[in-house]
Amino acid sequence: MITLTSGPVSVYPRVLRALSRPVHYDHDITFLTFYEELCLKTARALKWPEPALILHAEPAVGLEAVARSAIGGADVVLSLVSGVYGKGFGQWCVPGCKELIELEVPFNEAIDPLAVAAQLEQRPDITIVNLVHHDTPSGTVNPVVEIGRVVRRHGALFLVDAVSSFAGMDVHPDDCGADIFVTGPGKCLGGPPGLTILAVSQRAWAHIEANPDRPRASVLSLTDWKDAWRRDQTFPFTPSVAEANGLDAAVDLYLEEGPERVWHRHAMTAAACRAGVTAMGCSLWAAREEIAADTTTALQVPDGLRAEEIIAAARARFGVIFSNGRGATLGKLIRIGHMGPVAEPIYAVVAVTALGGALRELGFKADVAAGVEAVLARIAASPE
Amino acid sequence: MITLTSGPVSVYPRVLRALSRPVHYDHDITFLTFYEELCLKTARALKWPEPALILHAEPAVGLEAVARSAIGGADVVLSLVSGVYGKGFGQWCVPGCKELIELEVPFNEAIDPLAVAAQLEQRPDITIVNLVHHDTPSGTVNPVVEIGRVVRRHGALFLVDAVSSFAGMDVHPDDCGADIFVTGPGKCLGGPPGLTILAVSQRAWAHIEANPDRPRASVLSLTDWKDAWRRDQTFPFTPSVAEANGLDAAVDLYLEEGPERVWHRHAMTAAACRAGVTAMGCSLWAAREEIAADTTTALQVPDGLRAEEIIAAARARFGVIFSNGRGATLGKLIRIGHMGPVAEPIYAVVAVTALGGALRELGFKADVAAGVEAVLARIAASPE
Amino acid sequence: MITLTSGPVSVYPRVLRALSRPVHYDHDITFLTFYEELCLKTARALKWPEPALILHAEPAVGLEAVARSAIGGADVVLSLVSGVYGKGFGQWCVPGCKELIELEVPFNEAIDPLAVAAQLEQRPDITIVNLVHHDTPSGTVNPVVEIGRVVRRHGALFLVDAVSSFAGMDVHPDDCGADIFVTGPGKCLGGPPGLTILAVSQRAWAHIEANPDRPRASVLSLTDWKDAWRRDQTFPFTPSVAEANGLDAAVDLYLEEGPERVWHRHAMTAAACRAGVTAMGCSLWAAREEIAADTTTALQVPDGLRAEEIIAAARARFGVIFSNGRGATLGKLIRIGHMGPVAEPIYAVVAVTALGGALRELGFKADVAAGVEAVLARIAASPE
Amino acid sequence: MITLTSGPVSVYPRVLRALSRPVHYDHDITFLTFYEELCLKTARALKWPEPALILHAEPAVGLEAVARSAIGGADVVLSLVSGVYGKGFGQWCVPGCKELIELEVPFNEAIDPLAVAAQLEQRPDITIVNLVHHDTPSGTVNPVVEIGRVVRRHGALFLVDAVSSFAGMDVHPDDCGADIFVTGPGKCLGGPPGLTILAVSQRAWAHIEANPDRPRASVLSLTDWKDAWRRDQTFPFTPSVAEANGLDAAVDLYLEEGPERVWHRHAMTAAACRAGVTAMGCSLWAAREEIAADTTTALQVPDGLRAEEIIAAARARFGVIFSNGRGATLGKLIRIGHMGPVAEPIYAVVAVTALGGALRELGFKADVAAGVEAVLARIAASPE
Repeated sequence: MITLTSGPVSVYPRVLRALSRPVHYDHDITFLTFYEELCLKTARALKWPEPALILHAEPAVGLEAVARSAIGGADVVLSLVSGVYGKGFGQWCVPGCKELIELEVPFNEAIDPLAVAAQLEQRPDITIVNLVHHDTPSGTVNPVVEIGRVVRRHGALFLVDAVSSFAGMDVHPDDCGADIFVTGPGKCLGGPPGLTILAVSQRAWAHIEANPDRPRASVLSLTDWKDAWRRDQTFPFTPSVAEANGLDAAVDLYLEEGPERVWHRHAMTAAACRAGVTAMGCSLWAAREEIAADTTTALQVPDGLRAEEIIAAARARFGVIFSNGRGATLGKLIRIGHMGPVAEPIYAVVAVTALGGALRELGFKADVAAGVEAVLARIAASPE
Repeated sequence: MITLTSGPVSVYPRVLRALSRPVHYDHDITFLTFYEELCLKTARALKWPEPALILHAEPAVGLEAVARSAIGGADVVLSLVSGVYGKGFGQWCVPGCKELIELEVPFNEAIDPLAVAAQLEQRPDITIVNLVHHDTPSGTVNPVVEIGRVVRRHGALFLVDAVSSFAGMDVHPDDCGADIFVTGPGKCLGGPPGLTILAVSQRAWAHIEANPDRPRASVLSLTDWKDAWRRDQTFPFTPSVAEANGLDAAVDLYLEEGPERVWHRHAMTAAACRAGVTAMGCSLWAAREEIAADTTTALQVPDGLRAEEIIAAARARFGVIFSNGRGATLGKLIRIGHMGPVAEPIYAVVAVTALGGALRELGFKADVAAGVEAVLARIAASPE
Repeated sequence: MITLTSGPVSVYPRVLRALSRPVHYDHDITFLTFYEELCLKTARALKWPEPALILHAEPAVGLEAVARSAIGGADVVLSLVSGVYGKGFGQWCVPGCKELIELEVPFNEAIDPLAVAAQLEQRPDITIVNLVHHDTPSGTVNPVVEIGRVVRRHGALFLVDAVSSFAGMDVHPDDCGADIFVTGPGKCLGGPPGLTILAVSQRAWAHIEANPDRPRASVLSLTDWKDAWRRDQTFPFTPSVAEANGLDAAVDLYLEEGPERVWHRHAMTAAACRAGVTAMGCSLWAAREEIAADTTTALQVPDGLRAEEIIAAARARFGVIFSNGRGATLGKLIRIGHMGPVAEPIYAVVAVTALGGALRELGFKADVAAGVEAVLARIAASPE
Repeated sequence: MITLTSGPVSVYPRVLRALSRPVHYDHDITFLTFYEELCLKTARALKWPEPALILHAEPAVGLEAVARSAIGGADVVLSLVSGVYGKGFGQWCVPGCKELIELEVPFNEAIDPLAVAAQLEQRPDITIVNLVHHDTPSGTVNPVVEIGRVVRRHGALFLVDAVSSFAGMDVHPDDCGADIFVTGPGKCLGGPPGLTILAVSQRAWAHIEANPDRPRASVLSLTDWKDAWRRDQTFPFTPSVAEANGLDAAVDLYLEEGPERVWHRHAMTAAACRAGVTAMGCSLWAAREEIAADTTTALQVPDGLRAEEIIAAARARFGVIFSNGRGATLGKLIRIGHMGPVAEPIYAVVAVTALGGALRELGFKADVAAGVEAVLARIAASPE
């Protein structure tokens, strides 16, 4: 089986081997030293001057923890919604915040920085802005740098979910002025999904510490874990040692290969894949190609077909696994992931052929030959 | 290094290899089928008629989730406190419950079932009773079966933390009448620590579903994950695929070796270790040997010495890693774990020698010869 | 990188994990029992009534050992030569045999059973006939069953090298009347290459034992290892424990998946690949498609191009690794392996696209669109 | 199970993980580059100026290849015999050499350099001298440096089998003037046993190339593999890719830890073990402690007991695996290996206790308390 999904993704063999390293005792100096180095190394990948903050559960938990820790009864939150995950963040804001304002666009569109500026001007009391960079269930990206500039000008805290874009695209907390930047090992880093990686600014820590409603002694507390990176500190709760071992190898791979090279192969694979699926006769889900992610290609389910049938046919006939949509996009689109080890152009060929073959089997006249030629043309055009 | 701690523990090689299995996509039928089988298989290990409930974070998170999900504003909670973890459970009860009553004994003692009965008689409005079976930071066990009988008679929900006793001792949810039984792969199952395993009774589910304060769309929600075991259900959040792979191998090993055999070697190793450390001139932490756990041997730090020095000396000179106490027991005791792959009598020899050698180096006249002879006598007395 | 070679091949993940099992002491009952079961299990894969004989070096060593052990000064050997490996076997016969007779055909052709019959009739003193079933450097197969029938009738010992056909095609020692059948884990079983697997008939053992020139206390002695499969026997030399662990998993996978299913996907992948490369404008190396192997597709290097350039371009641009020829076929052909985990139709798409793209880059007008369509047509025609 | 044998030994976890690296195609530049670096890195471990020569089968095969390649019809061989392996080397000399002279001492003794000098003086026509440094079946070492000096003076080629001493003791080809130095990954390097590592001097290569009887196109040919280390050369036969991956990690570990540190822990463990077993009432096999190896402790089987019973009892009761003797020493001694990961003083405690417990069970009054105290005294005396 070849897994071309938007996550959990196919994991690099070296990361799989790292998962089988001995499990060290978390209070022992071997692990404490390893963990400090891991937080510093991950910070280098984030281009962040402080140690990365690692939470020991998958990024959805990390995002919930961010919402609970950073958002208190005094906060007015502007949540920018261009997809299922943007929408979902609101549910973690509502119980605790003073007010939730949502700026929403259709789920095949991107947030306009000017609209954000207008909203912020209208409501100077907004204290927090949340944005999902790549809303995975739509395969679309928002202009996080431009929006970040707008938010910075206004002065609100800027929370960025970069779970499925970081390490596959050139996005870092400092680039976009994020105060809290959330990502994880289970997407473009090509690791398993059970950790959250965060960069938290000093402003954000101050905001959290001033939040009377923030949880403590809880999985939802960022504060509990704030100093856990230090080798002379014990852990508030037991860290997921095996997942940390996996992250360590994933970050090493990323830094050793060179981030620019990694982003390049994600971008090239996605471009080739978009060229292929459109040449084959399919339509991208994204309203415009410019907002299609370099880490996931989402395409509309052709009229008369069902997403799950297409996925089942590609799996049965070609051993290739694609993702369906999720929530509001479920059944409306097919997602082809380009993350980690499968962010290589040859997998654009695999994706186009398996998708095209599956569509044909279901009666849609996919022009696979044109699709493959378009993929090849895109690959040939790239400086090797 | 030989890790003889109370967790994270040394992991079985086969479980380490399982951690390096390919990471499957959680929506794919391969993983969905695997996960259903894993929940059923884990239920067999628990001797529980329903599928096990797996939460994708370490057991402290699982316990917090139990507290938040099961305890609402109408609940009066009796928390039985014989150690640090028993005490700690209260912090997750307080914010939500109507009243928290603690029945506390010194941390080298065990809860008396008669005292529980008396308390319940006095307060018939108690709706929930919580007990930590083996309070790891003390290495002591409570009479969970007897207490369970008392609680059942009264009618309150019975929550049992068996994180560090299950799979090392003969304790199961049904034996002790637990309504919610919490354990994990990272102690006696000899796996990594990043999951929680639960057995939840129908009564408990009814109580949770009637709890208006229970969280939803949250890592703290048991309800979200209730049906996740079914292969025709998707997951509410992304499961920790690698940890699930590890659990799968750990449960297989446990069932293949035979639970009775596994408990026997835990018991024998602990008995030999207790014989050794006392013959050597040390004192058990537990007030009476009967309440010393079969999965951890805790001993008092001899007068004039410091726990961290002893631990450091055993590590430096013998490559053996022991645990310190935790919270209120920190610095007062040394813990020798007998969990998973090191629950083998030869490790009682290793522990006694490394501990004795370390104590000597620090000036305490440990009679290691007597200690080793006591261990050997205990091993020789066992039917092989 | 995607390895589509004729060996060493891409290894199944489960076999890789098995290679990391603990290395057991070869005199311990754990290993002795494991090894006996391994020899019996491998015999089941061979459909052979006796335990498989395992030699602890790669199959070329195994073949040398067969030649040295079975061929003595009284033997007249008929070596059937349709390729580089057939030719090479002669060098191990010459020093020891009475006479070596070679029946040779061009290296894109197959041996004709009638020619074998004629030769045997002419030389009734021939005592041994050797045949390479799939001569890997040519990607061609010989009619081993028919030739076996001819040899049986004559009475000579029949030696069959099935290294790169067994487990990818329906060929077994008994089917073809082989007296010594040689294969290994590193081709269609999808394992690493460091062992030889043999089936040796009672007639062959008698012949070996009657051979005064056979080596003893040597890596080249079959006799030394004859009884090594038995758990009550020690090993003559140290077995390669890790390789044995890998073979164990490879045979398990093969038997669990079902040999018929495994052969089917090898055959289907090869058929699709042949359809693709010819539709693209390339020519098969084999004189006729009927003699092209189901485990390797060899194609002629187009005029004016160099094999190593094509291989380098496919690697650089597509991350796909093909094999060159070897010895007399080096530089004349490109080989695409269909063995083990890559014997799946989707890899025919990968191969055709990467090869076509590479050819284009070097100026050859490959019709990749036609190639991919031909592959898809072949896949669609198959009963899924 | 704890494996304390003289090989195959317990393998370092990191080496086990390396065994599960992807198997690369041997003609691909990735593998060719890796292999060149491996040969150079292994040479650094050998302190040898030329790339190490690696043969792809266990060291007994490597020794047979040395004998066949280096010894021709013109050679008079002096084989120094202090044990089973020294004796065994003769069988590979006899068929090819002009004359085999054996200088033999009892198998609990060591070769005297003066006796070697006397022999060489008497027979100036000796062209080759062979010595086993650590004759594993006896656990005794010969004075290889002194003997090497004698041989150098005479001018014969000096062949040294350091299979079970290299990397556990300070012995290298150049130290002892070896012309061919043979070792492997499966003893003190803590790897699996399926490769041979050689250092071959220019003199030795000249001798080999002048040997008209040397094998070619054979597993027994050193010449075939002479240039295989170069990334621009192909392999004569298929290398054992997985074993090479394991060796790579084993050499890395050795160099990273620091050879001096590795030898120190081997020496300290052996010294502690010898102190323990003798204090317990057992007798070393070696005639004098000075010739007892730092990598294996061999002790005499007490009167009235049988070696296999002792081994079985230690295994059944303590889960500890020891080695029996081999060939002429089989049944006469018990061997405790101190190689690789178990060359740590705590394993001297494990060995003494398990051995002592087993002896007691069989009626021998082992003073385990005295044994353990002697081990501890030795450990305490060491600069930590």
